Amino acid sequence: MKKIAIVGGGVAGLSAAIYALRSGAEVTLFEQFGLGGLVATIDKIENFPSYSFVEGWKLASDMSAQAKALGLKTVRQRVVSLQKGQNEFHVVTDKGEYEFPAVVVATGTSHNKLGIEGEFVGHGVSYCATCDGAFFRNLPVAVVGGGRVAVSEASYLSEICGKVYVITSQEELTGDQKAVETLLAHSNVEPLYNTTVSQIMGDGEVAAIEVFGNGKKTRLDVAALFVATGAVPVTDFINVEGVAKSRGYLVVDGRCETSVKGLFAAGDVTDGSLKQIVTACSDGAKAGSFAAAYSATVK
Amino acid sequence: MKKIAIVGGGVAGLSAAIYALRSGAEVTLFEQFGLGGLVATIDKIENFPSYSFVEGWKLASDMSAQAKALGLKTVRQRVVSLQKGQNEFHVVTDKGEYEFPAVVVATGTSHNKLGIEGEFVGHGVSYCATCDGAFFRNLPVAVVGGGRVAVSEASYLSEICGKVYVITSQEELTGDQKAVETLLAHSNVEPLYNTTVSQIMGDGEVAAIEVFGNGKKTRLDVAALFVATGAVPVTDFINVEGVAKSRGYLVVDGRCETSVKGLFAAGDVTDGSLKQIVTACSDGAKAGSFAAAYSATVK
Repeated sequence: MKKIAIVGGGVAGLSAAIYALRSGAEVTLFEQFGLGGLVATIDKIENFPSYSFVEGWKLASDMSAQAKALGLKTVRQRVVSLQKGQNEFHVVTDKGEYEFPAVVVATGTSHNKLGIEGEFVGHGVSYCATCDGAFFRNLPVAVVGGGRVAVSEASYLSEICGKVYVITSQEELTGDQKAVETLLAHSNVEPLYNTTVSQIMGDGEVAAIEVFGNGKKTRLDVAALFVATGAVPVTDFINVEGVAKSRGYLVVDGRCETSVKGLFAAGDVTDGSLKQIVTACSDGAKAGSFAAAYSATVK
Repeated sequence: MKKIAIVGGGVAGLSAAIYALRSGAEVTLFEQFGLGGLVATIDKIENFPSYSFVEGWKLASDMSAQAKALGLKTVRQRVVSLQKGQNEFHVVTDKGEYEFPAVVVATGTSHNKLGIEGEFVGHGVSYCATCDGAFFRNLPVAVVGGGRVAVSEASYLSEICGKVYVITSQEELTGDQKAVETLLAHSNVEPLYNTTVSQIMGDGEVAAIEVFGNGKKTRLDVAALFVATGAVPVTDFINVEGVAKSRGYLVVDGRCETSVKGLFAAGDVTDGSLKQIVTACSDGAKAGSFAAAYSATVK
């Protein structure tokens, strides 16, 4: 009997579900929030092969529907611990405990925090432009970060906000070059290179930030600061011995299996070379297929 | 200046193009036939994440359009040789020679032949049900092969032909279990296990085949034989020293680079663990991104 658990309902987890279900496995997916994960919060997607343009929620909801039509069973509980028994894994949630011969971890990453004074989340400090951008229509805002995510967040905000500072400690913005060019073509976008955020000012709500660059401190009057300084893989719930990691990410082989037999991983939580929607889906296809096949061999 | 060549215009090549173009590279794609490759010939696709159902030509044409809108340059010539110079690769076609700092090979596989008497292709022996199935409407046909491709070919034919024998030397049909079940649910489908095709009979056109199984020979009156016994990677044009292969497939690392610096590969031509549209697209994303980045470093 093929039977697997998937922890995490983003696109990696959903793709794993689609492939495992089609191969005849019984699939239980644990996700405490809605299905779709990070992708559901992305405004515009232009690089998923076959879609010149698609909204994140649409892609996520199509994948959810595809998995559900195949018989996906979802458990809306938070997984607090993953443990290994003799021949089985124990998925422990805040509400119960479940047993599976094979598990796919697809928990993605969580945002890095700045760790500076005044980081009052929800009152002008945000980790998601798509979620919170509309609150700051026509106002000046700042994005801190210089990579792909920062560029994407700033692009989104440039269409809504009056002014968008992009603050990076790097010498340039990195990632998709076309996206960087598109961003910098906006007249209301001002990049500040070799610069860091030193303080967030305001009385319970962001009123301004202090940045440090080129040897001097500058005050920028902004209504919000969007933090896009990277992310860390969500693996702290994994209490299984001998799981290999690289810089915190789960190391997987070409079949998306970790160093522990029967434990597979897919998407942003892995040490994959490129973190894209299509690579997460591909990981999911592999992890789902091989986890299902493995589960059938467990007594 | 980022500049790469892609050899092969299937979905792996197109995905590589999309990612390289978005990263600012100039991309030349060599493809002697139409874009879309094998996918363009697939009847029904139900396992590409986000599409519960899509026709192959639609997926292929959407990807082509996406790449063309980004500025893809295609060269409709057959690549006869790929060679390496000091710091560059030479793509030699039947009509000319071109130079690139980095190359992505995405040539896929070609079909295995049966190698038995009477294998007159185009006169009742076919390697593509979607291409030729309609010629045998309401007639009895046979599919030889027991894997994913054979199951898919037989499913397609079961909707058109009067009778479909599925001949496999294995004890069962393998691959996507749901697809196998769906196939066997058709009353006009008859699987013959532990059986091989020993002869094709007819006067220039298939009239019958002789199969051998369970210790005896049997004659089956069929109008066509569809061969789905696997495929071999297309690498014979690669005249570069030191390219590592495994069972003929190009060995690639997590960035889809081969053992030769600057030479990348994606899709069915690689030694990847799972051969699916989404895995080919993911390979392409990696190969295209990293080949483009590498090309910028070449003097």
